[in-house]
Amino acid sequence: MSDHGYEAGRLNLPFVGISTFAKKPYVADWDAIDADVAVLGAPFDFGTQWRPGARFGPRAVREASTLFSFGHAGAYDHEDDATYLGGDVRIVDIGDADIIHTKTTESHANIEYGVRKILAAGALPVTIGGDHSINIPCINAFSEQEPIHVVQIDAHLDFVDERHGVTEGHGNPMRRAIEKSYVSGMTQLGIRNVSSTAKEGYEDARARGSDILSVRQVRKLGTDAVLERIPKGARIYVTIDIDAFCPSIAAGTGTPSHGGFLYYDVLEILQGLAKRNEVVGIDLVEVAPAYDPSESTQILAAQLLLNFLGFIFHAKAQR
Amino acid sequence: MSDHGYEAGRLNLPFVGISTFAKKPYVADWDAIDADVAVLGAPFDFGTQWRPGARFGPRAVREASTLFSFGHAGAYDHEDDATYLGGDVRIVDIGDADIIHTKTTESHANIEYGVRKILAAGALPVTIGGDHSINIPCINAFSEQEPIHVVQIDAHLDFVDERHGVTEGHGNPMRRAIEKSYVSGMTQLGIRNVSSTAKEGYEDARARGSDILSVRQVRKLGTDAVLERIPKGARIYVTIDIDAFCPSIAAGTGTPSHGGFLYYDVLEILQGLAKRNEVVGIDLVEVAPAYDPSESTQILAAQLLLNFLGFIFHAKAQR
Amino acid sequence: MSDHGYEAGRLNLPFVGISTFAKKPYVADWDAIDADVAVLGAPFDFGTQWRPGARFGPRAVREASTLFSFGHAGAYDHEDDATYLGGDVRIVDIGDADIIHTKTTESHANIEYGVRKILAAGALPVTIGGDHSINIPCINAFSEQEPIHVVQIDAHLDFVDERHGVTEGHGNPMRRAIEKSYVSGMTQLGIRNVSSTAKEGYEDARARGSDILSVRQVRKLGTDAVLERIPKGARIYVTIDIDAFCPSIAAGTGTPSHGGFLYYDVLEILQGLAKRNEVVGIDLVEVAPAYDPSESTQILAAQLLLNFLGFIFHAKAQR
Amino acid sequence: MSDHGYEAGRLNLPFVGISTFAKKPYVADWDAIDADVAVLGAPFDFGTQWRPGARFGPRAVREASTLFSFGHAGAYDHEDDATYLGGDVRIVDIGDADIIHTKTTESHANIEYGVRKILAAGALPVTIGGDHSINIPCINAFSEQEPIHVVQIDAHLDFVDERHGVTEGHGNPMRRAIEKSYVSGMTQLGIRNVSSTAKEGYEDARARGSDILSVRQVRKLGTDAVLERIPKGARIYVTIDIDAFCPSIAAGTGTPSHGGFLYYDVLEILQGLAKRNEVVGIDLVEVAPAYDPSESTQILAAQLLLNFLGFIFHAKAQR
Amino acid sequence: MSDHGYEAGRLNLPFVGISTFAKKPYVADWDAIDADVAVLGAPFDFGTQWRPGARFGPRAVREASTLFSFGHAGAYDHEDDATYLGGDVRIVDIGDADIIHTKTTESHANIEYGVRKILAAGALPVTIGGDHSINIPCINAFSEQEPIHVVQIDAHLDFVDERHGVTEGHGNPMRRAIEKSYVSGMTQLGIRNVSSTAKEGYEDARARGSDILSVRQVRKLGTDAVLERIPKGARIYVTIDIDAFCPSIAAGTGTPSHGGFLYYDVLEILQGLAKRNEVVGIDLVEVAPAYDPSESTQILAAQLLLNFLGFIFHAKAQR
Amino acid sequence: MSDHGYEAGRLNLPFVGISTFAKKPYVADWDAIDADVAVLGAPFDFGTQWRPGARFGPRAVREASTLFSFGHAGAYDHEDDATYLGGDVRIVDIGDADIIHTKTTESHANIEYGVRKILAAGALPVTIGGDHSINIPCINAFSEQEPIHVVQIDAHLDFVDERHGVTEGHGNPMRRAIEKSYVSGMTQLGIRNVSSTAKEGYEDARARGSDILSVRQVRKLGTDAVLERIPKGARIYVTIDIDAFCPSIAAGTGTPSHGGFLYYDVLEILQGLAKRNEVVGIDLVEVAPAYDPSESTQILAAQLLLNFLGFIFHAKAQR
Repeated sequence: MSDHGYEAGRLNLPFVGISTFAKKPYVADWDAIDADVAVLGAPFDFGTQWRPGARFGPRAVREASTLFSFGHAGAYDHEDDATYLGGDVRIVDIGDADIIHTKTTESHANIEYGVRKILAAGALPVTIGGDHSINIPCINAFSEQEPIHVVQIDAHLDFVDERHGVTEGHGNPMRRAIEKSYVSGMTQLGIRNVSSTAKEGYEDARARGSDILSVRQVRKLGTDAVLERIPKGARIYVTIDIDAFCPSIAAGTGTPSHGGFLYYDVLEILQGLAKRNEVVGIDLVEVAPAYDPSESTQILAAQLLLNFLGFIFHAKAQR
Repeated sequence: MSDHGYEAGRLNLPFVGISTFAKKPYVADWDAIDADVAVLGAPFDFGTQWRPGARFGPRAVREASTLFSFGHAGAYDHEDDATYLGGDVRIVDIGDADIIHTKTTESHANIEYGVRKILAAGALPVTIGGDHSINIPCINAFSEQEPIHVVQIDAHLDFVDERHGVTEGHGNPMRRAIEKSYVSGMTQLGIRNVSSTAKEGYEDARARGSDILSVRQVRKLGTDAVLERIPKGARIYVTIDIDAFCPSIAAGTGTPSHGGFLYYDVLEILQGLAKRNEVVGIDLVEVAPAYDPSESTQILAAQLLLNFLGFIFHAKAQR
Repeated sequence: MSDHGYEAGRLNLPFVGISTFAKKPYVADWDAIDADVAVLGAPFDFGTQWRPGARFGPRAVREASTLFSFGHAGAYDHEDDATYLGGDVRIVDIGDADIIHTKTTESHANIEYGVRKILAAGALPVTIGGDHSINIPCINAFSEQEPIHVVQIDAHLDFVDERHGVTEGHGNPMRRAIEKSYVSGMTQLGIRNVSSTAKEGYEDARARGSDILSVRQVRKLGTDAVLERIPKGARIYVTIDIDAFCPSIAAGTGTPSHGGFLYYDVLEILQGLAKRNEVVGIDLVEVAPAYDPSESTQILAAQLLLNFLGFIFHAKAQR
Repeated sequence: MSDHGYEAGRLNLPFVGISTFAKKPYVADWDAIDADVAVLGAPFDFGTQWRPGARFGPRAVREASTLFSFGHAGAYDHEDDATYLGGDVRIVDIGDADIIHTKTTESHANIEYGVRKILAAGALPVTIGGDHSINIPCINAFSEQEPIHVVQIDAHLDFVDERHGVTEGHGNPMRRAIEKSYVSGMTQLGIRNVSSTAKEGYEDARARGSDILSVRQVRKLGTDAVLERIPKGARIYVTIDIDAFCPSIAAGTGTPSHGGFLYYDVLEILQGLAKRNEVVGIDLVEVAPAYDPSESTQILAAQLLLNFLGFIFHAKAQR
Repeated sequence: MSDHGYEAGRLNLPFVGISTFAKKPYVADWDAIDADVAVLGAPFDFGTQWRPGARFGPRAVREASTLFSFGHAGAYDHEDDATYLGGDVRIVDIGDADIIHTKTTESHANIEYGVRKILAAGALPVTIGGDHSINIPCINAFSEQEPIHVVQIDAHLDFVDERHGVTEGHGNPMRRAIEKSYVSGMTQLGIRNVSSTAKEGYEDARARGSDILSVRQVRKLGTDAVLERIPKGARIYVTIDIDAFCPSIAAGTGTPSHGGFLYYDVLEILQGLAKRNEVVGIDLVEVAPAYDPSESTQILAAQLLLNFLGFIFHAKAQR
Repeated sequence: MSDHGYEAGRLNLPFVGISTFAKKPYVADWDAIDADVAVLGAPFDFGTQWRPGARFGPRAVREASTLFSFGHAGAYDHEDDATYLGGDVRIVDIGDADIIHTKTTESHANIEYGVRKILAAGALPVTIGGDHSINIPCINAFSEQEPIHVVQIDAHLDFVDERHGVTEGHGNPMRRAIEKSYVSGMTQLGIRNVSSTAKEGYEDARARGSDILSVRQVRKLGTDAVLERIPKGARIYVTIDIDAFCPSIAAGTGTPSHGGFLYYDVLEILQGLAKRNEVVGIDLVEVAPAYDPSESTQILAAQLLLNFLGFIFHAKAQR
């Protein structure tokens, strides 16, 4: 594309071009990942208990992310007077993990494989679900890494141990995570109203050292006080269930719950986190585009991920 | 369903099963209601002045309510550290009042008949509209009861006496209610912007003792101060027009009005009300699912009703 | 409901009342089925290879079926000058099989259990999917019955033996069926364009005695000639994948394929079949309402099932 | 608009301008109608038995009709080698009849008033519903005219005399029409499947001289033979219920019924009718845009009406 | 319409009648504008960089505005205890500027022509877009007027000078405005996140005297402090890009950006502005109804415009 | 992707992976095209006269095309007993031409550039629009090639020479094509009802040797007779406007027209054409996904293109 490429003058409007994440290069060979960030799709949704469709989350978030590809030399944010994601931050899209219909364990194994490849390449893994069960293989992939503290942003506790033999559904991931020797702790933000986790789950989570805060509790404490509760120096894995947000801006999800976070609630937590801690892994799950004809949900997911990545590498550059 | 029932091991996920309200038993014989709460559908919408479709409100709210049927031994709320709607609260769904197309008075009479049957059985009537005109027969059904104070949560005053001969449309119910000898007063919350009620309606309402507060006025006062304005000891009938809420979370309604309540605004009023007063009747109206493909509106209605019922019976148990 | 029931004068318009199939009685106790027809929901969709959502098929078809509850003393069809489904045909809705997320075998077992209960009660089982994999447990449930010939109406051959370990997905059911000793043969109508079945699948199907006809081949032959190819006297199990139809009338499905059947193409085959053979089981699958905001797909499914049931019992009465 | 008007050079693309019917002049003064055709909206839908929303039919059809305002000197049809609706055919839009919520009789009276005004002005009345009950006042308005023969294009017979006191719903219009002394006969085309009319209704209709044909019967006979059954020389009133059409092209309607007419089925009947008989009145009803996000239904309605009007005045010019 | 007009008794419900803005008179002759306010549609959207469709903004806003046509003698607002837009404020709708597909300059010229005609008639021009590029001809039309200060309410700075030769797209209008000798200054509110304007654009804007505030900055300052930054006595032109709002209430737009204004944020700024300054021109742009099936976006636009006009003329009356 | 690629065992379900056309390799360097077929997106829609949105056509068709990526060793069609698009046919996706908002000529030039690059590489160009104006640069790119005969499949004649200065809109392409010295003739199929082309356009087209047939005329003649009218031996360029099809299967388009082709009507013409003539270029235009929430339109486009390509290379192999 030498003589018509962007450098040579393509305007490259958001609606033009193949929908990889943020229109970044697609790397099909997972042994050839050479980047700061690698985005993996995990289009698995057999773990849902209400509306399915999160399997189309990766495609939806990728397409929405092209809306934010205006900037060429990074994205300038006038509030922060900072330019994020300049050419020095190398992001690649490695496509999707292979999903096998009717097969949960096998599909999860393929997701884990992808995240391990990203980690092996020294890149920051950003996995786009799929339902929240895909967090299980994502966390599994960190088994050879230094310990991590998990920050979950979600409406639901997802702390069911087992029901009817189910241990790998979208109600189980946080219970699975806390069992890992290399998961040093957990902060669960946005948790509200009823879910598949019963009272015992809450007690169990707290007993195992989890810090659970509702949307109203987070707001009452304020961003700084919330951040203070997260261990200083801990390596952070962030898992964002889009249903943490108010259905007003994230209706495209399987199990919406009213009373959720608004945009700045979460953005400011992420920005603070990027400054205070090292972020070593991210997943964003439960975007189910079929339920949001306005596409606002995937735009939220893309806008959030790109800003979060900007914050992370901006903070890193300033350390 | 003895050997495959829930007790014997059904997981009973939200998306499984017949859509009665909260998957509670359907009682077809209205002379055999034996419950604490009886839910009646009132699928009438000939009283609307803009977009119709609230006739499908009862079905939509019933289906959405199944999303909240996760809990088996009640719903645990970690913010309140309380378990709501345990097995001791008996809820039944008695189906819908018979609606006769083109016939308003006759349809209303059938709704009134159903609410009277519920009251006769000693259960708390919860009527799901339909448009707001269905509040007229609901209030009529209380004619033999002790006096009630009506708390209306709504964008519009609905206080038109008569226009073009119309006295039973969705702009008239509060005017009809105040005329009743057994309606001792009225609190109207969320009222904003223009509607079919002209200035005279407001003056008339206030003259008859109504307390009218806008969304901004409610927020400025705060929940406690608002609750203080409601007579202590009064038996409360609550009528919730879903358009009281911001269209961001309740777009599926006939006459949306921007600047409405958010979820916690109303939830906290209802929770306070349940603690301070006896709630003797509820209706929730104007959910018109055709205008909200995300289904957020009916999810809001179901989430609100189930929480409100939880608050009522939890408070009752603690008295 | 003695004094306000239909007999006593309810108009009972389609939009009024709880959405069981055709507003027929709900029988929760599967040991107490006493009916000619029993409808079972099988809201399982982990077997899909493209768009999920067929888990909401049973609810959607039930709700759509209420549109056809106008008739009181049966449904009069002026073209046939016949009244179908009069009071003598007893239909019940037994709700849904229990579905376990992430668990295919277990969920299928619960479906099989329900169909077996219906067969044990001597009723005609009508199972509403769910994806086409739910045909597997439906056919399994016939293991103790006299041999059956399967008539499949579908866009896809669904004859994959195994790929990546998958044997119970929605591409496998016809292969699973033909393996049964009690499946005497198979007629596959509407098959067209590409699918997950490769050339070998077609050869295998034909080698095992299947008769495969495309939409154009069916039309060229004509209804009578097609019916002639089905063994006289065979007991017929009919499995209808809604994607057999043109997406113009059945867009609400996971894997639509253009060039499908129109309404009368299939209606007339079903009517002929009801006259020529005994129909001993039915399933209708792959209605995924999220993709058809017009609701036409579920209306098609309901209209088809009710007509088919009418034809079956009308023919039976005339034998 | 002298110096920027069309004559002076406006391109006037379809998406530009106020949405009157076909962008024709709006005549607010009903005593000043001076035209060949006058279009009246009748946004009444309290007569529906399933999905409401036909009250937005007039607005939807008007907006869709602007798509066909390309032509300036009439619309050239290459198949007929004819130019339709040239400047010599004067069409006006007189807006909507006043509708009173909860009031059927009063609303109908306002519709009748409008049609009478059109007839008094010597123009052809084209009434856009609204549900099919609006045909009742349309026919009433012909009481002082020469006898008319009604040609109904519809899925449903709409021949219910009275049920639960309802005589003016959308299931009653054809029964109401046949009672009129000035209705000399009736041809009912497209009638199929079940509806609110029971067997007795069909017998009654036939007894009163109605000719009832299903979609398949019409197709089998062919357009010419169908036209032959309509009395030569009769003055024809045509009432088109959009649900006569297949839901594939008319999903935006209250009570869709599969197996309906396709476009040319009806177009050719209307073209033949325009040649053979004098058409003295038209209504088109039951377009409910909320159920068809593609807008195809209202485009069908507009395309059909404009072609029909073209045929009528072209035939008139050649007589 | 003498004997059936509103004065003579039309109820004139919102869903009844031709959709001009607020059902006000349509004035086709632009040399005969005699009004206080004239509304012009500018259905141009070739300037968009993501989702098109704002060309249908004028029709959508007009239709939504009919919802607010309840009031007859003006609209009573109980919060302000004021009646807005009584009979003394004369509003007309002059239809749309002529748009030429593929031709930007020519289409813009036609918009400018319309605004000039309104100004020549001494009316307040209210232009409904169309994409934000239509602000360019709107501002051009003020070339012969006294200087204006532009208040922009928007998510994006729209301050691109030129890219790839594009100077008249929806990313350019504020840059074009500031170049005018008669634009004395600019206040840009709601600006956030990335857009087509790079860092240099912000610096350029500030260098030319623009005051740029984000949503969070506006909220932190408060309405009064924001208003204080706008020059006292300046004649104000207000340009509202609907994407200034949170996608939760304005999803129907081309380039949504999370974190936007809520309703009262903007309403109170507009109300304060109407009291403090003279408002001499308004445009509202980027409503693209195809992306918001709930119609909330156009309802927001209409509700905002009608309230703003009410504030302006109420303040004027009190001066 | 060596150790997890398809050969090594990926199942690669349709919903998995980056959405290039048919999941074929993306070739960013237009000087390195080495393939039999190269697919180019042309997301330009400023040429539309009614609903815009075709700029999202390329993305929509690409995503839908993944549904047909089941087959691994080509796609087996049991009706033809043929395997299409086996590994020997090399297809690549070269992404989109650069589009400049507000700039028609410049955007068209970029499309022409891409098609020229494909032709230079000796591959078959398949351009996905975008509106029909993108056919203009596609045809321009053939200026150095042997003469071509254009087969247009469309509802509209698109033969406007110039109106209001517009010569490059979506109503002009066929007029532009016929002017080329290397366009030897034209066959226009599916043309019906009104459009922006007036009577003179038809006469002009015929005078210049065009063969115009409506849908009904094509059906009456039959596929073979239609094919006979196309010059034997001519090199064929096929331009498919998706609105040639019935809105029942192609509602997602800007200017739908009822009475269009059904699937087999066109499929069989394309199959015949592939056998009889050499096809040297293809474009498929006017897929506007925003208007078809069912996604049927883009599925039709993808299914048609893949079958057509299969026919072309199958026929070529047999020559």
